[in-house]
Amino acid sequence: MSDGDAEADAGSVVAGNRRAVGKLLTRIECADPSVLAVLDLLYPRGTHVPILGITGPPGAGKSALVDQLIARFRARDERLAVLAVDPSSPFTGGAILGDRIRMARHNTDPNVFIRSMAARGHLGGLAGAVGDALIVFDAMGVDRILVETVGVGQNEMDIILHAGTVVVVQTPSGGDVVQAVKAGLLEAGDIYVMNKMDTGGVDRAAAALRDSVDFRHPLNGSDAWRPPVVKTQAVEGTGVDAVVDAVLAHRQHFERFPHQLEARRRLQMSAVLVERVAALWRFRNSTQHPSGPAFEYWLNEVMARRSAPSAAAAALLSGFTREGIADYAPAALRPGK
Amino acid sequence: MSDGDAEADAGSVVAGNRRAVGKLLTRIECADPSVLAVLDLLYPRGTHVPILGITGPPGAGKSALVDQLIARFRARDERLAVLAVDPSSPFTGGAILGDRIRMARHNTDPNVFIRSMAARGHLGGLAGAVGDALIVFDAMGVDRILVETVGVGQNEMDIILHAGTVVVVQTPSGGDVVQAVKAGLLEAGDIYVMNKMDTGGVDRAAAALRDSVDFRHPLNGSDAWRPPVVKTQAVEGTGVDAVVDAVLAHRQHFERFPHQLEARRRLQMSAVLVERVAALWRFRNSTQHPSGPAFEYWLNEVMARRSAPSAAAAALLSGFTREGIADYAPAALRPGK
Repeated sequence: MSDGDAEADAGSVVAGNRRAVGKLLTRIECADPSVLAVLDLLYPRGTHVPILGITGPPGAGKSALVDQLIARFRARDERLAVLAVDPSSPFTGGAILGDRIRMARHNTDPNVFIRSMAARGHLGGLAGAVGDALIVFDAMGVDRILVETVGVGQNEMDIILHAGTVVVVQTPSGGDVVQAVKAGLLEAGDIYVMNKMDTGGVDRAAAALRDSVDFRHPLNGSDAWRPPVVKTQAVEGTGVDAVVDAVLAHRQHFERFPHQLEARRRLQMSAVLVERVAALWRFRNSTQHPSGPAFEYWLNEVMARRSAPSAAAAALLSGFTREGIADYAPAALRPGK
Repeated sequence: MSDGDAEADAGSVVAGNRRAVGKLLTRIECADPSVLAVLDLLYPRGTHVPILGITGPPGAGKSALVDQLIARFRARDERLAVLAVDPSSPFTGGAILGDRIRMARHNTDPNVFIRSMAARGHLGGLAGAVGDALIVFDAMGVDRILVETVGVGQNEMDIILHAGTVVVVQTPSGGDVVQAVKAGLLEAGDIYVMNKMDTGGVDRAAAALRDSVDFRHPLNGSDAWRPPVVKTQAVEGTGVDAVVDAVLAHRQHFERFPHQLEARRRLQMSAVLVERVAALWRFRNSTQHPSGPAFEYWLNEVMARRSAPSAAAAALLSGFTREGIADYAPAALRPGK
């Protein structure tokens, strides 16, 4: 694909052409390498659209909440892009996507772009594919991006690394708290939703969640955000307005304290970059692809028992990290150009 | 810890001091960095002990089979080291380890060294911790090493990368075949065990497994190993002698075709090394640890939207892989020394 094609594709996305956006997302899912040239063009043209991540264990009611949130933000006349991320294997993917059918009522709305993604084989893993999809969304001219993902496992934690505001959905059932601790969700949320508030024990569960969240978010001075805990019944829409208010308040908090948003973005992007390098390294050295001479050298050292695997890995990595900046940067990207 | 301490620790392991081995394994589990010096000393002194990996879905009867295999190999007067790998979180670890209590009857046998491992926080991930433990076992003077791991997920597939012979345990229940396909187990096994042969449908299940395995292991010439399918009732010990025969036959196959063993080891070690580099890279760049100047440079490029994350990752990695061999190798390890 020529540069001219990439420029045309990028132009269609920036013009808000939904068909072009859809085709580009499919190419991202299929790990079409020519898509990288389009992303390189789109990334500088992004408009820093607020990204709202919605996560939580299976069955917590994430899709119902997203459906309600779409309706609320549409009532505020916002144009939306929604990404439903399904990290499951193809064996279970269908069932999980089925839960999202209720969202389909928004599909006829020209101001809501909804896409499910279950990418495999992407150079940067699923989190990399999501990151690339968000670059496209950020450039297509919407007011807000919603990303829904199951908050179980490292992969999903990587995905919410892209969000400026993370909503963690829980239910009153006791097991979820343990799940949340395991998954690191009590550190990850900016807003906590205790869904299924019609279930028994909701007040006790919400209070326990309140305590757990406060314990993990010590208020260091008056400029720290204190994650609210909101009770909802998402299917009926009860409490969803309070979630929207919390989302807007979190954004206002960052507008008051822009250095906090900047620090968060830097921390997130650092983690994103680490994972992308690891994924690309793994991809390039998979058995189908020959490795470079340094890798071959150290592999031979290990095979001959002259170097232990840990020492060889450290040696390979030290060759990587001690390099000077000038050697890394391609000419086109060096400072001053 | 001084080099002298490392030398003393390595010497104790080589002398077969079980207490020293146990303490070293604990240090590996706890990610004690001083253990690397001991491993560097032990790795060249390893004796290429055959490693038998036993894997399969939860509940397939792996622990019962391992218990029986220990008894059979002991009857052949072999000295054994056994590693039961539990990749679960601390929340479920206890329960799974409880299944392994039956193995404890061998704990009083001075010629059987049994250890459970549920390492977290290791520089090379759980697979890295297992790889390090196997270096210790390989140097302690045993005749055979057994590694038991749940065959679900990438982590476990990494673990069996260390084994010269992999036994995949299945049961007649239909769901397991789908699980096996998903987990890539039908490519991974050298020997297949259809356990719980007293269950209904065992012959049909074994025949189906036979077909599936043959489909994935095309016999390219007469020197290819055809993975046998063995029916067992592991708790009662039925069929276990046939598993032992298959294990010995697989070893004899590699003695007849040593280039096959060499090629397998090279492929495995290559994958091990790739994963260790990725894990170490991730560890070094975790939020607690500052990154190098090249990483900082590219992070700034991405933050300023001058470079897309995928392009930055590729640039970082190309700086890594194009390096010459001489630049990587520490002086002490360069060829000719």
